[in-house]
This record gives sequence, C-alpha cells and structure tokens, in this order.
Amino acid sequence: MGDQVGQVVEGTLYYLPYTEFQRVRVLKLPREQRVAIFADMCRLNALYKIAYAGSGHIGSSFSSLDIISWLLMEEMNDDDIFFSSKGHDAPGYYAALIGMGKIDFDFIHKLRKIDGLPGHPDIGTPGIVTNTGSLGMGISKAKGMVFASRLGKRSGRVFVMTGDGEVQEGQFWESLVSAVNYGLHEITVIIDHNKLQSDTFDKNVSDLGDLEAKLHAFGWRVERCDGNNISAFAATLASLKGEPRPKVIIADTFKGKGVSFMEHTSLASDAAMYHFHSGAPDASSYQLAAQEIMSRLQQCMSDASASVLVFKTVEREATAPPSTKVQRLIPAYSRALLEQAKKHPNLVALDADLILDTGLIPFRDQFPNRFFECGIAEQDMVSIAGGMALKGLLPVVHSFACFLSARPNEQIYNNATEKTKIIYVGSLAGVVPGGPGHSHQAVRDISALAAMPGLEMIEPCCSEEVAQVLQYCVTEAVGSSYLRLVSIPCDIPYQLPPDYVLKPGHGVVLVEGVDVTIIGYGPVLLAQAWWAASMLRDIGISVRVVNLPWLNRVDSSWLESVLADCRHVITLDNHYLVGGQGEMLAAAMFGLPVTLTRLGLTDIPVCGSNNEVLHALGLDADGIAKVVIGCLDSK
Amino acid sequence: MGDQVGQVVEGTLYYLPYTEFQRVRVLKLPREQRVAIFADMCRLNALYKIAYAGSGHIGSSFSSLDIISWLLMEEMNDDDIFFSSKGHDAPGYYAALIGMGKIDFDFIHKLRKIDGLPGHPDIGTPGIVTNTGSLGMGISKAKGMVFASRLGKRSGRVFVMTGDGEVQEGQFWESLVSAVNYGLHEITVIIDHNKLQSDTFDKNVSDLGDLEAKLHAFGWRVERCDGNNISAFAATLASLKGEPRPKVIIADTFKGKGVSFMEHTSLASDAAMYHFHSGAPDASSYQLAAQEIMSRLQQCMSDASASVLVFKTVEREATAPPSTKVQRLIPAYSRALLEQAKKHPNLVALDADLILDTGLIPFRDQFPNRFFECGIAEQDMVSIAGGMALKGLLPVVHSFACFLSARPNEQIYNNATEKTKIIYVGSLAGVVPGGPGHSHQAVRDISALAAMPGLEMIEPCCSEEVAQVLQYCVTEAVGSSYLRLVSIPCDIPYQLPPDYVLKPGHGVVLVEGVDVTIIGYGPVLLAQAWWAASMLRDIGISVRVVNLPWLNRVDSSWLESVLADCRHVITLDNHYLVGGQGEMLAAAMFGLPVTLTRLGLTDIPVCGSNNEVLHALGLDADGIAKVVIGCLDSK
Repeated sequence: MGDQVGQVVEGTLYYLPYTEFQRVRVLKLPREQRVAIFADMCRLNALYKIAYAGSGHIGSSFSSLDIISWLLMEEMNDDDIFFSSKGHDAPGYYAALIGMGKIDFDFIHKLRKIDGLPGHPDIGTPGIVTNTGSLGMGISKAKGMVFASRLGKRSGRVFVMTGDGEVQEGQFWESLVSAVNYGLHEITVIIDHNKLQSDTFDKNVSDLGDLEAKLHAFGWRVERCDGNNISAFAATLASLKGEPRPKVIIADTFKGKGVSFMEHTSLASDAAMYHFHSGAPDASSYQLAAQEIMSRLQQCMSDASASVLVFKTVEREATAPPSTKVQRLIPAYSRALLEQAKKHPNLVALDADLILDTGLIPFRDQFPNRFFECGIAEQDMVSIAGGMALKGLLPVVHSFACFLSARPNEQIYNNATEKTKIIYVGSLAGVVPGGPGHSHQAVRDISALAAMPGLEMIEPCCSEEVAQVLQYCVTEAVGSSYLRLVSIPCDIPYQLPPDYVLKPGHGVVLVEGVDVTIIGYGPVLLAQAWWAASMLRDIGISVRVVNLPWLNRVDSSWLESVLADCRHVITLDNHYLVGGQGEMLAAAMFGLPVTLTRLGLTDIPVCGSNNEVLHALGLDADGIAKVVIGCLDSK
Repeated sequence: MGDQVGQVVEGTLYYLPYTEFQRVRVLKLPREQRVAIFADMCRLNALYKIAYAGSGHIGSSFSSLDIISWLLMEEMNDDDIFFSSKGHDAPGYYAALIGMGKIDFDFIHKLRKIDGLPGHPDIGTPGIVTNTGSLGMGISKAKGMVFASRLGKRSGRVFVMTGDGEVQEGQFWESLVSAVNYGLHEITVIIDHNKLQSDTFDKNVSDLGDLEAKLHAFGWRVERCDGNNISAFAATLASLKGEPRPKVIIADTFKGKGVSFMEHTSLASDAAMYHFHSGAPDASSYQLAAQEIMSRLQQCMSDASASVLVFKTVEREATAPPSTKVQRLIPAYSRALLEQAKKHPNLVALDADLILDTGLIPFRDQFPNRFFECGIAEQDMVSIAGGMALKGLLPVVHSFACFLSARPNEQIYNNATEKTKIIYVGSLAGVVPGGPGHSHQAVRDISALAAMPGLEMIEPCCSEEVAQVLQYCVTEAVGSSYLRLVSIPCDIPYQLPPDYVLKPGHGVVLVEGVDVTIIGYGPVLLAQAWWAASMLRDIGISVRVVNLPWLNRVDSSWLESVLADCRHVITLDNHYLVGGQGEMLAAAMFGLPVTLTRLGLTDIPVCGSNNEVLHALGLDADGIAKVVIGCLDSK
C-alpha cells in the first residue's frame, strides 16, 4: 500500500468491505488479472478472520485461493458444485463466498464463533454443500451427488478440492475405483499440492512418491499445473472439456501463498516445522503479513489503473494475561511418555501427522528409531501397532480422539481380539476447543470404543494425573487402554490431595460437600463443577465434586461409600450422554437410593469459542449450578 | 480313484489321515510334484472339514492351496511368517498346517466348533500369527511385525496372502505407501487373484482395472504368475531374492481350483453367481468333488510310482428336517424393500459385495438403475450414500453389521452431522452364526453406532416385524436409522399379536407372566426366552417375555406400565453388555423399584455351532431359565 495507505499499524486488523469486492468483480480487466486481485483480497480477509477469531488455517487457505477464486468467478455455473474435502481451507473459501456475496458480509467477524462460520465447513452455512473436516471423504461424496443428479436427469459438474496430505487416507484411493467404472466425468478433483501437511513436508511425513503415476494407474485423466498461476490453472481446466473419464488436477501450490514468510519455501530446512498450518499469527506476524498483501493489492490496482482499495479496520482485542493456574496436559504427557520410554525399551510411539499436537516431538528427538510416523493413515497406523504388539513391542498410538476412535474403529477391535497390549492416546478430546467444529470435537470417542473388550479408558484431570495415568497404562494395566487427553490450556482451580494415588475404578473428592455429589472427569468440566460449587457455597448449598478418571469402570464399593450420605448425584460428561461415563455410572448405581441427573451432550455440538460452547450446552459453571439447584428443588 | 478305491459313496465323507501326509512329505519326487500332491490332499481335507462343519469357504481355500503348500513345505524357514489377510481361506490353510503337523490332527473334525478351528483365523490356533477376517489389514500388520523384528535385531520374512476383492479396501492402498518409504523388503504380498469375490467376478463388482500398473505406481516390486502352477510360483518367488523393495506377486488362480465344477471358469456367464464362496456343498456336490480330487490324487500317486493313498471315512450326519416355524428375515427384508422401493422412487440401495447375503438380488433385478454396487469399500459406500442423501435420494446402505458399524464408523458420523436421512441395514447381526468367528460375530455394532446423533436403531424379531420396521424407517423416521437383522434361519415359537403395530419406544408382550419380566429384541434370544418361559411354567414360575425392537430408545410411560406389577427385570442382549439395549434400559429404569439383571456378552465370543455358542454364553433357554430362578431366589 506504501504511498496510498501508509504503514499497517500494530494492534489493528484490516479487511476489505463488500463494496470493494463488488467493484473489483466488474473491473474491466483480463479475467485472470481480475481473479488474481480477488484472490488476494480474500487472503487479506481470511487473515483478518483468523486473527480476529484467534485460530484458523492460514497455510492451506492461502494455497488454494487462486483456484477457488477462478472456479467461483469464472468457471462454475449454477448447476455446478464446489466443495473442499480437506475443509481446513475454510477461512479462505468463506472469504471467497463472502466476496461473491453468497454469505452475508457480517459473517467475516464470526469465524469460529457461535452461530457464525465453523472452523470446518458445515452445510448450515450458505454455499457449503457438504460437511468436511475429517479427511478423505470428498470424492466419495461427490460420486453420490453425481449418481443422484444422473437419476434425477440433472446435469452439473462437481469440483472437489483435496489436500495433498489427505491422499494418504485409504478412502481417497478406495473412492477412485468406481468413479472410473461408472465413468463419472462430471467430477474434477483438484489436489491442492502445497507440499506440506499438518506438521511439515509431505515427503517427510509419508512420501507420496509419484502421485501422477498413481492417479494414472487408477484410470483417471490426470493433469498437473501451477495452482497459484491462474492462467495456467484456467488453461488446464479448459483442456479437460469433453474428457469422458473423471479428472484430477495436481495443482502445484505454495502453502501460505501470498505472504513471503508464510510460504513453505521460506522454511529453513526440510526438517523444519511449519508454523502457519493452524492457530493464529502473533501480532507481529499479522502486521507483516497484512502489510505484504495490502501493498501488493494496491500495486495491482495501480497496475490495473483502478483506484486504490479502501480498507476497514478493527482494533485487535487485548489478550488476557495467562492465569497462573493454567495447566497444559499435552506437555505433561510428553514428559510422562519420555519417562516411561526410558524405563521400557519395548515402548514405541506411532503418529498420524500430528506430532506437534500430540506432544511427540520430544519422544521422536530422543528415541528416533522407536518413533513411527504413519502419515494421515489411521487404519494403517492402528494395524501396524497390532503387528508390533504381537511381536513384543508396546505401541503407543496417537491421534486426535475424534479420528483415533472412529476412523480405525474396526482395526482397534481386531487388535482387541488378539488380546495384545496397546495404548491408544486420543488428544483434542471433548467439546472444546469449540472452534474447529464438530468434525474435531471429540464427543463420541468413549462410546465408539466402549465395547472394545479389555480396553480400559482413562482421562486425567490435571498434569499431575497425566503421569499417573500413563504409568498405570504402561505398567499396571493387563491389556490395552485408551488415554483421553484434553488439549486446551485449562485454568484448573483444584488440586489433587498430596497423597493421591490413582486406583482402578476409584475416584477422588476434589471438593467436599453434602447436598449434591457431582461426578466427572477431565479438567474442562471438573473446573466448571469446582466453580459451580464455589458459587453455590456462597448461597449455602454444599456440593461435593468427585474426579473419576475411569471412563468405563467403577469400583462398586468405592461408589457406594462415596455416595453413602448422598441423595442427589449429577454426572458430567464432556461427551454425548449416550455411551458416556454417566451412562456407565447409571448402570452401576442401579438400586442405590439416590436421584440421578446426567449432564452432557445430546446433539451435535455447536462451533464457537470455548466459553460460548460450554455455555450453550449448559456445561459451564452457571449451567451446572442451575442443575444443582433444580435437583434440590425437586426433592 | 477309479480302480484303486472305487466309487465315492453318498452320505460318506472322506479325508486323509496324518500318516499319509507324513508319507507324501518325504516322497522322493521333484519338489513341485510333491507339493502338488500335498496341496490336493489338503483340498480333500478342507472339503471334508467344510462338509463336516456344515459351512466354510471352499473357493478361496482351493485357489490358494498350491501357494500355501509351497510356502510351508519349501520356502519358509523358522524365522519366516505367513498369514492370510483375507482369512476366509482358513479351511485350506488349516488343512496345510495339519498336514505339516503344526496343528493336532484331531482338529480336522473341529472346524467351526467350539474349542476347535474358528471360521476365520485366530491366534489361539497353533500356526496362526494374527487374527484376520475383516479385510485389508494384513499388510499393515506385516509392517508392524517387521518394524518389531528390526528393532529386536531379528531377521525373517513375512508372507501375506490377500484376496483380490480385498484390494478394494482403502486400507490396502493406505498400507502400501510406508512399506516403500521404509524399504520393507522383508514383506512379500501374494494376491490370490482368483477373479471372484464373495458374489461374483471382481470385474462386475468393482473392476480392479490394471492391478499391476497400480501396484507398480505405488513403488512395489510387482511380479505376476500362475498361482496354481507350483513351478511358476516357485520360480517367481526365487526371482525376487535380493530385491530391496517390498514385493507383491499377483498370483493368477482359479477360484475353486481342483474341482472342475467349482472352478470359476465353469460359470455359465460373467453375470452368474458363484456358489462355492461360503457355505457347505450339498451331498451330491460333495460326492462329485471328493470323487474328482481323490481320483486325481491316486493318479498322481500312481504317476509317482507311490502306493495308493488310504482314505478314512466318516458318515455324514443326517440333517434334521427343517422346522415348520423357521423364519428367514433376509428374504422378508428383500420383499419389504421391494415394496418400499415401489412406493418411493427416491429410494436407492447400496451394497458392498454382499448382494446375496444382504438380500439385494430382487431389488437389483427390479431396479437396476437404483442399485449401486460399491465393492468391498464400506467407507466409500457410506460417503457415497451421504452425497446421495444431500441431493434428495433415500439411500439404503447394506453390509454385515460387524463391518457396517465399524469400518465406516467415521463416515456414518460425518453423514449424521449433515442430518440427512439414510437407512443403514446391518445383517449377520448378533453372536450367531457362531461359525465364522469373532471377525463376523456382530456384537459391538449397537455400541459403535450408539452415539450417532439422530440415529434410530431397531431390530425386528420376526419376518412380519421386518416389514413394519422398514416401513417405519422409510416413511416415519425423521432422520437416519439402523436396521439390525439376524441372518440365520430362526425357529420362532412366538407370534406377534394380530393387531400389532410398531410404535416408537414401545415394546410388545410375547408371553404373559408375573414373576420376572425379560426384555429383549431379535429372534435369536427372544426365542430362547420364550422356551425358557415355557420350561419354567412347568415348574410354576411365571415369566413375561417382552419384545422391545427399539435398541436405543424407550418410551418411559410404556416402560413403567409394562413393569408396573413387576419386581424383577432381566434384559437380554445379543451384543456386548456394554452399549447394548440393557444398558440403555438401566438408565431409563433408574429409580424404578425393580431388580435388574443384564444378560449379554462380556468378552470376545467363542466360535462354534450356534447352539454351542449360545450355551457357552449362558444365553440359551437353559441359561436364561437359571438366571430367572436366581433372581427369584435372591429376592
């Protein structure tokens, strides 16, 4: 922006209003040039949204925006459909939909907010045709749409964008076969080949090898082009007209395209971690990135002899100073895993492209030959672990709880039938973070794994308990276990008793009380229960809060003793009510002289900030306190 | 056998004793010739086992036996491992292991019997290194074994046999990538390319296209040979020595090899169904098949100047005449589906290579353009259904309950988050048939699907109720549903009341009684409960038996009314206790003044005949009656 707009100011966020999009969309320019400006405008607005929301996926939003913009502005007609199978490019796609007037402009301020734009696509949003966020399903869904169109004698093409890490999912390959056999020429897949997946370069995670050859061998028409060169992409698309086979374009792109220091080519080495996959840029990164995009935009407008763009601004909210009581369970897990690994040479760790999020970097660095990166291939990972366990290793298998419990569900069962010992560690467990949306909110994992014979499921409520739980899984548990881990930093107001020792099926009282007993697990809801108890104490109601880390077992004597003087019990599930700890406790408490109220989720969770989500579900301290009062009123 | 042994007699089963295997294994013959005789001897014994057991997989046992025999007799040393990923060739593999003296010979009479040889492999059997039966996991498991060997500085190769239909599973492709990246030369995959999958020709189910090119593109060393020509196979294996990449041999074989009318080339047309995939041959097919193998064997021995083989015989047990009360729910479902399809033009049906078993042939024949064969690709199938539902179709998705609930578990959840309407139909539900073993005994499906928001789960107890349940799913259910179907023919002693109408959350009394109320679902256990009630009536105990087809909902007023005069309740789950109907009822009955006893499975089910399995689990009439008496004693 240089002369025209001046220096981007720290602490200020910038975006382009809808009127500017309207103006640019009709600029008398070559189509490619107009689309390039539009795409960059969307980059600025996507960056704004992510900075304003505090999290979101910059890298793949930026890599894909040239392609998306061309499709929306120039290629597609009303019968055509576009969707992103990877889904985490949502901020970019939303920006384009907003720029095209398909989504109300005010939503620009509502990324990852309740009733706003979810972190991953949901059909509740205008312009979104299918829910994505769990990888590899896109081509299959496109096929279903085409079959439906054909039966209904409707025409229309389906453009599906996938990630390049995404093609590591077996379903991607599974879905290619019948597309050819049914001759589904309506489908064009665009692989946003930005060379990086969640953590780092594809080739270091799980090398795709000769991707073109693979796709060719599956019988698809394959083209390859520079996906950040709009002319090249447009020409490639044009060359596919009339092709009777399903088509795939490998679009070579730059992750973080459009901001020099966010582009993957800026990484110092092949081994470097990429910092702009998800999360929000810090203040200075934001400032530099906005400056670069805005300056380029103004230059482009000037080159096009168009008047300068006028930006709108919003002051960035000051971040609250971190509480001193904040605990992070993932680093605690990293430390605990190292401890166990030192003692147990047969312990190996497996990862599915989430080495950072699952806390495995220290382990990999210290035990490189005992670390197995499997790529985004959870089924393969779990069955590899099965083979390892049969041969005497103790595999510890990592992914987000939502994926780990569901994607390889059958493979976990197969392992269970062999009665070997495997530790499954599911992080990002529970309904918060609420920003990524329902594809990532793991509130079904306990249920999905509940009937695995011999599987013990445990969720620690604080850093200290993490180490004890892992110790139990490694050294005491006879069979396999599922360690459920909350990933968000938690402000934890309680402390375990100094002499606390984890004991199978037993819980521990965090707050003493006599009127109502709340039983739950994990830091998110136990903290809310603690605050509820604290609030209620002020109005003379005495609430006992009990941490029961055991998700699928309870010692009946302990349960009877802890409820001996109690008439009202509330269970708290950071999970759907169905299949949660509360349901297990209901069966265990059958016949005891208590009332039982079970709190948890009953429907697909909303997306939003953590506080918004807990409040909407009635699972924040206020909500819990109200239920306590209700219990006592109805006695 | 002609002159030497005479005519094979109807009603007699033939097998070769271990002493004959000992003799043949040391015959002074060229290795290939000796192995060929051994393989044919195993064919005869596999045929015996299947005929004696009453079920088993002939086709792929026969196609793979030349390969397996060569590996066991000539190729493998003590450090090497072989397993079959497809697993349904178990009768053939067991025959070879028995012939090699690795499994006690007496087990030849115990296929699919309790404490015998399971229908699919289990590591409880000597010589079996991993559990298989759910497809596509083999290469992943082999990788895990190799990683473990490398860490332990152990050597040894892993030979994995897969089916050719099996390669339709995404996990197969998912598993190829890291094998190349890690250079796992220890692994040799042998694809038993017998051209047919469960129902018919691969190419008609889901054409594999150029399989060699695909495998090449994934970076594996690929060879192809005649897998029923032992010399060719041996030479191919030899050519792979020293290859640094993982290796795959496409072994072209004949499904049913060794019995002319069982070989797939005998099928009248490409569209014909193959009759020897699973099940048992009828008396005349057995007689002809045995005759052909035995005659050839004697000819081979004669050619080898060896003395004739001496067979042992067993009289085939007379089959009990079918009961007049037998009901088959799958044909009832076929009829009901046709009825609904006629009324609802948007109804489409999807199948994953189980068109016969899931009762879809009538639908396919009558509505060919509304039938979608997806191959063994459950994830793809379910996401296709998701795409269809988004575009206005009503997809009805079919597979066995064990696979449908687990393999595409994440895909079903993704569809659920879109709140579209899809009907999932899981057949082969429950613990019986007990013969196929735990990979096929669907006793975890209710639990695995329990927390899918909006999914109603229903299991009909008789043919008549099947139609009502499907009618409900199609026309009344707001959202998606899971129709759980028992596949075995059931002797059903009860009748629904003449005016019975399925009502959400409501059950129906099948037998009146006052002392104890048994609540259950489905024909298998309700029939046992009925017989238990009948036995107990004779000793003065009055048992009420209630059919509650709703697996995850119950109307609380109905429940209270049906239990109004009741002090003891027993729930019956044809499923693990965890996540079954009983657990749901426990939560619903909380606070009611009754005792509750929940019957169902607590551990991985045994394999065996249906009666054996139900008895072992205490879920037959005797077992249920004992629990009733126990309830009354403890009051």
